[in-house]
Amino acid sequence: MSVCAFDHPILSALVGDEHIASFFSFEAELEAMLRFEVALARAQAAEGLIPLEASEAIAAVCARYSPSWATLREGTARDGVLVPTLVRELRDTLGEPFARYFHFGATSQDLIDASLTMRLAQILPIFDARLAALGARLGELERVWADKRLQGRTRMRRARPISWAHKIASWRAPLERHRTRLGELLPRLLRLPWGGAVGDRAELADRADAVAARLAAALGLVFATRAGHSERDGIAEFASWLALLAGSLGKIGADVTILAQDEVAELVVADGGGSSAMPGKVNPIAAEVLVALARFAASLSAGVHQALVHENERSGQAWTLEWLIVPQLCVAAGGATRLALRLLENLRLPDSRQA
Amino acid sequence: MSVCAFDHPILSALVGDEHIASFFSFEAELEAMLRFEVALARAQAAEGLIPLEASEAIAAVCARYSPSWATLREGTARDGVLVPTLVRELRDTLGEPFARYFHFGATSQDLIDASLTMRLAQILPIFDARLAALGARLGELERVWADKRLQGRTRMRRARPISWAHKIASWRAPLERHRTRLGELLPRLLRLPWGGAVGDRAELADRADAVAARLAAALGLVFATRAGHSERDGIAEFASWLALLAGSLGKIGADVTILAQDEVAELVVADGGGSSAMPGKVNPIAAEVLVALARFAASLSAGVHQALVHENERSGQAWTLEWLIVPQLCVAAGGATRLALRLLENLRLPDSRQA
Amino acid sequence: MSVCAFDHPILSALVGDEHIASFFSFEAELEAMLRFEVALARAQAAEGLIPLEASEAIAAVCARYSPSWATLREGTARDGVLVPTLVRELRDTLGEPFARYFHFGATSQDLIDASLTMRLAQILPIFDARLAALGARLGELERVWADKRLQGRTRMRRARPISWAHKIASWRAPLERHRTRLGELLPRLLRLPWGGAVGDRAELADRADAVAARLAAALGLVFATRAGHSERDGIAEFASWLALLAGSLGKIGADVTILAQDEVAELVVADGGGSSAMPGKVNPIAAEVLVALARFAASLSAGVHQALVHENERSGQAWTLEWLIVPQLCVAAGGATRLALRLLENLRLPDSRQA
Amino acid sequence: MSVCAFDHPILSALVGDEHIASFFSFEAELEAMLRFEVALARAQAAEGLIPLEASEAIAAVCARYSPSWATLREGTARDGVLVPTLVRELRDTLGEPFARYFHFGATSQDLIDASLTMRLAQILPIFDARLAALGARLGELERVWADKRLQGRTRMRRARPISWAHKIASWRAPLERHRTRLGELLPRLLRLPWGGAVGDRAELADRADAVAARLAAALGLVFATRAGHSERDGIAEFASWLALLAGSLGKIGADVTILAQDEVAELVVADGGGSSAMPGKVNPIAAEVLVALARFAASLSAGVHQALVHENERSGQAWTLEWLIVPQLCVAAGGATRLALRLLENLRLPDSRQA
Repeated sequence: MSVCAFDHPILSALVGDEHIASFFSFEAELEAMLRFEVALARAQAAEGLIPLEASEAIAAVCARYSPSWATLREGTARDGVLVPTLVRELRDTLGEPFARYFHFGATSQDLIDASLTMRLAQILPIFDARLAALGARLGELERVWADKRLQGRTRMRRARPISWAHKIASWRAPLERHRTRLGELLPRLLRLPWGGAVGDRAELADRADAVAARLAAALGLVFATRAGHSERDGIAEFASWLALLAGSLGKIGADVTILAQDEVAELVVADGGGSSAMPGKVNPIAAEVLVALARFAASLSAGVHQALVHENERSGQAWTLEWLIVPQLCVAAGGATRLALRLLENLRLPDSRQA
Repeated sequence: MSVCAFDHPILSALVGDEHIASFFSFEAELEAMLRFEVALARAQAAEGLIPLEASEAIAAVCARYSPSWATLREGTARDGVLVPTLVRELRDTLGEPFARYFHFGATSQDLIDASLTMRLAQILPIFDARLAALGARLGELERVWADKRLQGRTRMRRARPISWAHKIASWRAPLERHRTRLGELLPRLLRLPWGGAVGDRAELADRADAVAARLAAALGLVFATRAGHSERDGIAEFASWLALLAGSLGKIGADVTILAQDEVAELVVADGGGSSAMPGKVNPIAAEVLVALARFAASLSAGVHQALVHENERSGQAWTLEWLIVPQLCVAAGGATRLALRLLENLRLPDSRQA
Repeated sequence: MSVCAFDHPILSALVGDEHIASFFSFEAELEAMLRFEVALARAQAAEGLIPLEASEAIAAVCARYSPSWATLREGTARDGVLVPTLVRELRDTLGEPFARYFHFGATSQDLIDASLTMRLAQILPIFDARLAALGARLGELERVWADKRLQGRTRMRRARPISWAHKIASWRAPLERHRTRLGELLPRLLRLPWGGAVGDRAELADRADAVAARLAAALGLVFATRAGHSERDGIAEFASWLALLAGSLGKIGADVTILAQDEVAELVVADGGGSSAMPGKVNPIAAEVLVALARFAASLSAGVHQALVHENERSGQAWTLEWLIVPQLCVAAGGATRLALRLLENLRLPDSRQA
Repeated sequence: MSVCAFDHPILSALVGDEHIASFFSFEAELEAMLRFEVALARAQAAEGLIPLEASEAIAAVCARYSPSWATLREGTARDGVLVPTLVRELRDTLGEPFARYFHFGATSQDLIDASLTMRLAQILPIFDARLAALGARLGELERVWADKRLQGRTRMRRARPISWAHKIASWRAPLERHRTRLGELLPRLLRLPWGGAVGDRAELADRADAVAARLAAALGLVFATRAGHSERDGIAEFASWLALLAGSLGKIGADVTILAQDEVAELVVADGGGSSAMPGKVNPIAAEVLVALARFAASLSAGVHQALVHENERSGQAWTLEWLIVPQLCVAAGGATRLALRLLENLRLPDSRQA
């Protein structure tokens, strides 16, 4: 199926981001879940809570696990989450006496949230690198066009001339701040979300912290003393960040569409798209799509904020709402960075100004 | 890829809708585009604007067309829309002297919007039938539980007892109104969106209306004298309708989660889902997902309303924004109808009240 | 206070609408509540449910009622709604033996919802008249500029020339459809929202329908057999309509800002605003504010759709959310109609094209 | 007028926040604008750009300025901003030779944005103090109820018992993180937004930085080398923060409404509100309103993110959109902190558990 543009065989090339999207394949999702289970078993074994043999058997079974998609679909439709089916399948394969040690002290939300968090830990550096690349390209333009001027425009009318350096600085500064923000939110977003049935790790009693420390280290996540199952501020803050990023890139897109108008002609977009009805027409595609992605991200971000109202120790209502939004919001922001890089590579001053 | 839950191999079984989603496969999308081109050529031939042989050659070529996905991806990433590449490929296959008659008097937006509208024309009766089925099931419950009572609750506290008939009527009445609304919006949504390069059908001069009439009849769409490329109120109204529908079903979901609480026990959900940590626990999955879909649809609907600000004769910014949202909004609302039917089939009064 | 622009002593002149806003003064709100109580008492008296003297005493007391704002504030902060305090005050003034007949068979939501519905019944014709005026002005422009042409623009680039008649038709058609929509939604929006404690009018037993019929007639609302306290589709549909309206006017605003750019100069805005820094600069203020109001209305509309998830027989959560949004959404859309009228009065073709 | 609940003479007591709202009175807004103009003149005088006498005359005139609201309204409706009228009035009063020195090197956006930023600089410590108070109260509850237990609930069903300490920690931790976030965003939000006509301070040439440094110091804002007129990430990030805050408090509200249900009875809300129809009923008003404010803030936050797409050097469209949202979003979040404090003061364990 290709209900969403980001999964669409053709449209994804326009709006999506293959690299970021790859972290949201089911294979990647499942792989992280299994990695979590193995790391949990090993941490528990290291703390003497389960036999070492159990943890190795769990690792072996997870390494060989090949999911029955039909069974997982059916189980997920029934249970609201695939974990009960997955756990049952793996316990069946493990058999006694080790089955009981699998998923010990864990609950569905641990697996799902950990899998997402582990993949976000991989995605964040990609965003940071993209922002660095965007900054570098903008810095290059700033240098090369330093002595060029353009008309400053306020309220859609000509105001006073400005330098291209001033314009480009206004594009670049927010991106630098986004990098700072990313560094700040990272420890809040990448907390280890393991908590057991009701989030308090009660199943492990006084060994909970020790296991959590080992688990966080193994998974590259931030140690935390509680799962925070119902504390969704980290993910909502990240959703805001993605919308901020898409919005700042949308501003660049909006500027380019205006500056590249035929009559305005302050800029040329070298790789503009063609028209099916008017052969010679050149359209500023990447710039337009940046605006679309910015508005899309703003709308989606609101949905994640609605999910902050997470009732009780786990809300099926609010949690499922996140699932509907977070992956595509990541890919939308990823697509925006990709398109912005492409756009900035293809910006030219018109010949009359190059002289 | 499975960036979106509706395209996800496992999650789509929980939140999605296979039937509605099938209209958003690329194959269905393309098939409708080709059907549009053939119908356009035939209407033009019938009006003597192009040779009959051309229209038949076009029909033959479209019937055999097998897209090169890689080429379409590349073209779409460049042009912002797949149509220029599609048209070039089909014209190449047609060869002279017929190539020039293909896509005559049409533009990218005609194909894309017509393809969507043609598929919405198929989807609307599905929604209507689902609403009828929901109404029938609610009517059945209303009859069977007519003499049963439950506690009325206001502001999350017990108020006065009410009849189940009163409760169910409050669930059913909005759904009936949604059917009425659907009938009202249909002629606005299903208008023929064909207009040529700038939407005024100027390419066909005084034959435009005659061709439009034939085309609308062939495609089962509503005749209109202009394409309305930049008039997005029809699609935004439909987005609102989908959010209204999801919202009304979300209200049923919210009621069921509350009434099925252990301590409240006014209702039993017969097919509740299981837990990975607590074997005996039964969760009201469908009810919760209904709430999630309602909040998701509300957020997405706002995005489509943003796209009403559609600058000039065609806005790449606003139009692309619709593409990111409309298909998944349809599937979200479709999934909600599916889950609501399942939920209502599985509602039981507790034994103590069945007596 | 002037937290909101629509209540701000200065900004309201820019973005607001004095006429529509007047229906949201506390005086107007309270007046409608009292009118509801009097009409309810008279309907009950006419049906022999309460003494005629009681209904006349109630009418007399309501006519003289002068609220203690401090008491109402305190009561509202405590009870979440002003009605308990209002009822107590009026019952105290009435004294026995009539006090018991005041607010008989009614609940807080009846008063609040009825007051809103009664005022919406007055506001709808204003919107309809504004739409008629906008249509008339657009019709005038269409006639006067019929033989003028402008550049059609797609994806922010020049496409082919179009007639002003075509452009204006694309502005006018959605507004005509909005009038049709308004007629369709009216009977769903203006239903009598009276239901008693849990919405089923159980307090009045078999006289409920007769009282409801009298009450609806007296208040100019549509008879309904249930209050529909928890069925919020009527108000959410209206919120969508307001956002559709604001969005269609925002599209006109967006077009005007683009067409009035210095370099494009297809249009002149005769009453553009001035700048504090550049004396000669003329800004297309009304056009810009139309876009802002469109985006604002789209965001607010999403909030009202969230309130469709209205748990149980009355949700303090969802209902309060409506209060935060609906009045300002009405005024935003009202302001948009006002600004659009002003803008359309001040549109001129540049001299070069007038010739 | 009282279009908005936060300006409503009665409702503001329920949902609003008098203290935060006071910073959004027109008087406060204007006072800050005048303070900015005086500080600007003094900084320019100190740098020898304008005569010292001019700066003193400006200070004197600003101190005595009494606005003509009717004139400001009219000017704002025309110019889209009150600044041109304000500047003309003050220049007229100043007379020559000083008039020319007033508002020198400044533009409308400088005044409006500076006035907002200066008031946000006052509001941030209030939020921080409220968060501290909420944390303290939660810490107190955590200590007092440390050995009490309640039923943990997941997916709206009973899971396993948890400690109140665990529950309260899940309420408190996000608030602590919000304080951290506030400290992080502060230097981005409170940047000096002064830039002149097109934001580059070109009017002041090589004295721009020196004047900016003096101005920032005088106003308590953060020095910046550019105005950043079109860089709206600071305000959008703050909007997100307000929605995060309201969302985390809405989660507490949701939990309390569920735990205070008659049948659940894990909590008692000591100051619940009364009903107009059922005298003995006690409603968890503050808890419900917290949920409403959370959903409202999430919707509004999306609107501010839409305003990130700020075209050119100043966008009337995007900037006006911020005005419609930011003040009420501040007051909504403020109201939420006020209500949360009230709610937490009034939470009690039922007698059966106090024992």
